[in-house]
Amino acid sequence: MVASQPAAPISLDALREQARARVDTSLAALFDERRTNGNPATALRLEAAMRHGLLVGGKRLRPLLVYLAGQALGADERALDAPAAAIELIHAYSLIHDDLPAMDDDDLRRGQPTVHKAFDEASAILAGDALQALAFEVLAGSAHPRLASMVLTLAQASGRDGMVGGQALDLEAVGGHPDVDTLAHMHAHKTGALIVAAVRLGGLVAVAETDPRLQALTRYARAIGLAFQIHDDILDVTGDTVTLGKASGADAARAKPTYPSLLGLEGARQKSLALVDEAVAALAPLGDAAIPLADLACYMIERDH
Amino acid sequence: MVASQPAAPISLDALREQARARVDTSLAALFDERRTNGNPATALRLEAAMRHGLLVGGKRLRPLLVYLAGQALGADERALDAPAAAIELIHAYSLIHDDLPAMDDDDLRRGQPTVHKAFDEASAILAGDALQALAFEVLAGSAHPRLASMVLTLAQASGRDGMVGGQALDLEAVGGHPDVDTLAHMHAHKTGALIVAAVRLGGLVAVAETDPRLQALTRYARAIGLAFQIHDDILDVTGDTVTLGKASGADAARAKPTYPSLLGLEGARQKSLALVDEAVAALAPLGDAAIPLADLACYMIERDH
Repeated sequence: MVASQPAAPISLDALREQARARVDTSLAALFDERRTNGNPATALRLEAAMRHGLLVGGKRLRPLLVYLAGQALGADERALDAPAAAIELIHAYSLIHDDLPAMDDDDLRRGQPTVHKAFDEASAILAGDALQALAFEVLAGSAHPRLASMVLTLAQASGRDGMVGGQALDLEAVGGHPDVDTLAHMHAHKTGALIVAAVRLGGLVAVAETDPRLQALTRYARAIGLAFQIHDDILDVTGDTVTLGKASGADAARAKPTYPSLLGLEGARQKSLALVDEAVAALAPLGDAAIPLADLACYMIERDH
Repeated sequence: MVASQPAAPISLDALREQARARVDTSLAALFDERRTNGNPATALRLEAAMRHGLLVGGKRLRPLLVYLAGQALGADERALDAPAAAIELIHAYSLIHDDLPAMDDDDLRRGQPTVHKAFDEASAILAGDALQALAFEVLAGSAHPRLASMVLTLAQASGRDGMVGGQALDLEAVGGHPDVDTLAHMHAHKTGALIVAAVRLGGLVAVAETDPRLQALTRYARAIGLAFQIHDDILDVTGDTVTLGKASGADAARAKPTYPSLLGLEGARQKSLALVDEAVAALAPLGDAAIPLADLACYMIERDH
């Protein structure tokens, strides 16, 4: 097999820092002070709530996937900035709404008060709504030739057939007794869809929808998305609140079905390892250019928060 | 002045019914039963909450604006279906979230229980979120050559610089003492931005962003948007709950600043009349093709709900 470009001589840690710096720059620019200065009627509390939800910490995993997937197919880094920011805006909005009292009712997120605790519920609802709109604004601002596919990808992954649908299934499942397949289906929507979208958005910057490498990336993303969620479930059992930046043991306290509760801790670990193997195997058609993506798959189940 | 096309020999009422039928068909198709049949894990409660918020009644004013504005510039009706549905999806989501207990805390909407009353708060939050995503999905599905402008238009109008920003300003204003300019600024965002977006989306189907007729339509839309809101404020004072389909007198009960409270009922009526004149004058460059839009401007301040 011939690699489509030389292997990047750079560690995953360095790539993560680069991606984080790029997306944080993009996101901060959206809240440039010149935007609101001289406009006394800007809803400053709304802007502050949006920033709080968006800028306080965060792993920036989804933007990293946009950059790594796009670069594995030869995309220019600058062309990846808009989709990377857009996907993080969607992720941030979903966390704000998930934390609301009517939903998961969480007080802590990334070691900070959640938006409705730091502000109020109305501000949290509106901040989430505005961040979702901003995601599509940022994506459209790129005016990419494949914009229609990109907007469709992001919208479908975040709506009823993706993230929001998964969150609804999750709420309906509390106290229920789903089997492993039902749980996988819920996670494929709730967290998986956005991870797949991140990878596909990066890929779409470089190649057309029909390119077989995009299908390979999608298979990769489905596997790491589920591995990521299983590892999250495991961390909720084994981690501590300080390292996680959110309450540990929260799933058990809510009687939420999880992989450890269905498969046992060791069974869940085995399942996540098998998924990482599957993800790495899916990358074969991309050759050495996909080494950072393979490294990331391993990191997914090694992280402690 | 030469009309760009023959005046439509058809009443505003008939055009309203046509537009309503078209957009209702588009929206119903989004909830086709074949979508969820055979997929036992679809979040059925979420879908039902989305339908409830979207399909129960409604004036479909914004879709009508898309159709009238587009047809005034010669657009094909079929090409207007996607933006018409998209703008109504955004409007419906905003009503669901505005009605939430943490926001306006309304029990009735369009004569029916609001979504969080008919379902629950979590379903209402998620239904709104999913309807917003669906708006962009529907718009992107049209794959219009000016899609980037259209997505930007819809996203900016619905987010922090438009509708959501206006709602935030409105919440901050409760109990305050804004002057007429501040109130107009709030309304220009909260309700005006989406009305302007409806007209511009219709226009963008037919002509480029730089076409001077699009500027004329924008001036028209700004004026009717404010007239519409002033008339809403007036109806809240003079209407009854049954006709309105929502609680009348709600603004006064909340000590919300309104046009009647600042200008008196008669002053508010005069202001709305002046805005309709301004709107009709702005349509001059469009000739007879804009007669339905002029009729609509008059209807805006004559409706009783």
